Amino acid sequence: MKKRPSIKDVAERAGVSMATVSRVLSGDYPVSGETRARVERAVRELDYVVNAHARALHGATSKVVALVVAEVVTPFFARIAAGVEEQATLAHRLCLVCTTHADPDRELDVVRLMREQRADAVILAGGVVENDDYRERMRGYAQGLENAGSRLVLCARPSLGPDFPAISVEYENVGGAHAATTHLLTAGHRKILMVAGPVGLTTSDQRVEGYRSALAMYGLPVDPVMISHGPWDRDGGYLRMRALLESGPEFTAIFAGNDGVAAGAIAALREAGRRVPDDVSIVGYDDVPSAADFNPPLTTVRVPQAELGRTAVRLATESSRETSGREHVMLGTHLVIRDSVRPLAG
Amino acid sequence: MKKRPSIKDVAERAGVSMATVSRVLSGDYPVSGETRARVERAVRELDYVVNAHARALHGATSKVVALVVAEVVTPFFARIAAGVEEQATLAHRLCLVCTTHADPDRELDVVRLMREQRADAVILAGGVVENDDYRERMRGYAQGLENAGSRLVLCARPSLGPDFPAISVEYENVGGAHAATTHLLTAGHRKILMVAGPVGLTTSDQRVEGYRSALAMYGLPVDPVMISHGPWDRDGGYLRMRALLESGPEFTAIFAGNDGVAAGAIAALREAGRRVPDDVSIVGYDDVPSAADFNPPLTTVRVPQAELGRTAVRLATESSRETSGREHVMLGTHLVIRDSVRPLAG
Repeated sequence: MKKRPSIKDVAERAGVSMATVSRVLSGDYPVSGETRARVERAVRELDYVVNAHARALHGATSKVVALVVAEVVTPFFARIAAGVEEQATLAHRLCLVCTTHADPDRELDVVRLMREQRADAVILAGGVVENDDYRERMRGYAQGLENAGSRLVLCARPSLGPDFPAISVEYENVGGAHAATTHLLTAGHRKILMVAGPVGLTTSDQRVEGYRSALAMYGLPVDPVMISHGPWDRDGGYLRMRALLESGPEFTAIFAGNDGVAAGAIAALREAGRRVPDDVSIVGYDDVPSAADFNPPLTTVRVPQAELGRTAVRLATESSRETSGREHVMLGTHLVIRDSVRPLAG
Repeated sequence: MKKRPSIKDVAERAGVSMATVSRVLSGDYPVSGETRARVERAVRELDYVVNAHARALHGATSKVVALVVAEVVTPFFARIAAGVEEQATLAHRLCLVCTTHADPDRELDVVRLMREQRADAVILAGGVVENDDYRERMRGYAQGLENAGSRLVLCARPSLGPDFPAISVEYENVGGAHAATTHLLTAGHRKILMVAGPVGLTTSDQRVEGYRSALAMYGLPVDPVMISHGPWDRDGGYLRMRALLESGPEFTAIFAGNDGVAAGAIAALREAGRRVPDDVSIVGYDDVPSAADFNPPLTTVRVPQAELGRTAVRLATESSRETSGREHVMLGTHLVIRDSVRPLAG
């Protein structure tokens, strides 16, 4: 009868120490790529990997980080997911992405599942409606996860403050919107439509705040009819722009709440015979991958989505050993200037 | 002292039978949306959901379907994920998306984790390099998952045949490429570049097959210099088109292996002063959401990504009770005609 391969057999075949094999298997320590490859080859050749007992012994049932988002279909979330995934791979964690359709019950189910799974971190990403119910829910998650040796990370949404038991990774959302609006003001535009997202959603509200602060800096009043709230995808941008062209206020420029809205608005403008940027200037937000392929290529605000995801995982996996678990990081945004803005004639 | 709410309390408040409450909580049986909403409201109002014991009693620790993809950042996979998620929600399952970077070790880790989790289904999506190693690995997964009461589903990749113990959901990939190439041939083009993906990748190989079959139908030879293989993202399309413009064969039309390649090719053509479609016609593949916003709007092949995802979950969650678990479904593709193709002058 063939003896089950032992960790010693793997070490011998790979030409490394048993401690090194253990490190590779546990995934807890940095090991050079070449060493890892040698050990993993030996593990495969000996079929050692089927020895679940050994894996358990080394605490290496696959470690997991979970990313929880409302939906994964937009480039914004997909790129955060790519960053989470990349850093999770470096930290030898599996990355699970869970979608909730913004349904608190599904969110709770996911957090519970990840607690059972003893995930290193549960990263909740994307804007929210920030009310008491939300804060209460987050506090529950944070406590529950901490009790299970895990971490709650809030990513691409506002921090809940220094006393809140979670890691926060934000980006300069208000600042980006301020810069986008200032870019239009500098080009001489004064009648600037803001085609924003739903009222109450933090990501959109912060962008409206940046729009307001830029106008205020120029000593201009904010006219409520110049701000449109609604669904902020391509369809939402298209339909609202059509309605605004029919019976809305005059404007020479548009600040779109995100690039999807900008794409829809440009399509509606074209149908109405208004040229971009000759007749109307437009700035988007997010710098989705296709923004450079728009007609015209879109001036927009770059959000470091992948870096948000990487930072979330890095803080969570490092902090589980060394730090407070209440870190707060703010990443920068910046304007990407392409061809959709022109100085106001006259 | 306040008594813990019982299932009876929930039933009374919702105005339904205890059996109905049990059905809603277990997520195992079809229940009308309205009834479900009533029960779920009662559950929330009574805080019955915190009663984990009751959940366990009804076998409703969250059921899961898992989608495993190489990466989630492209619109192609993001839309499959959206379909999986949508159908999972209808079937009262949580949806976990796992990314592997096409690393078999990570894939194996995910499949194991999902076996432990007793996922209803593990859906592997996207093209692969189809060799013996791959087939062997899939057979192992299928068996292991079946033993755990779960299902392997191959999605948007070739079926492994009727004897293979997995569900397959494909789309007419060859047919779509045939239609795209025929569209260019019908417009009078004969010098048609194919800017394909990597050699050996099933998705790309099938698209080259469709290109070949369309040329053959027109009695035209296939000139190997007219087929470019390489990375099939925007950068790959851009760099290869630049090189082809410098020292490649003559062409009047391009069949791009996917819309990302098309975007990169169009950018390189514009830099070189070649107008699309006036000088060069181009057809893409996939119909990513931004294809309509390209300059010019891109003629491309629509792939029913969301429907692929929905079908995968539907077959897996239904088949676990009633069917063979070896279903094979083929979904259609069709050409979406926009403005990137023009009849060849002269």
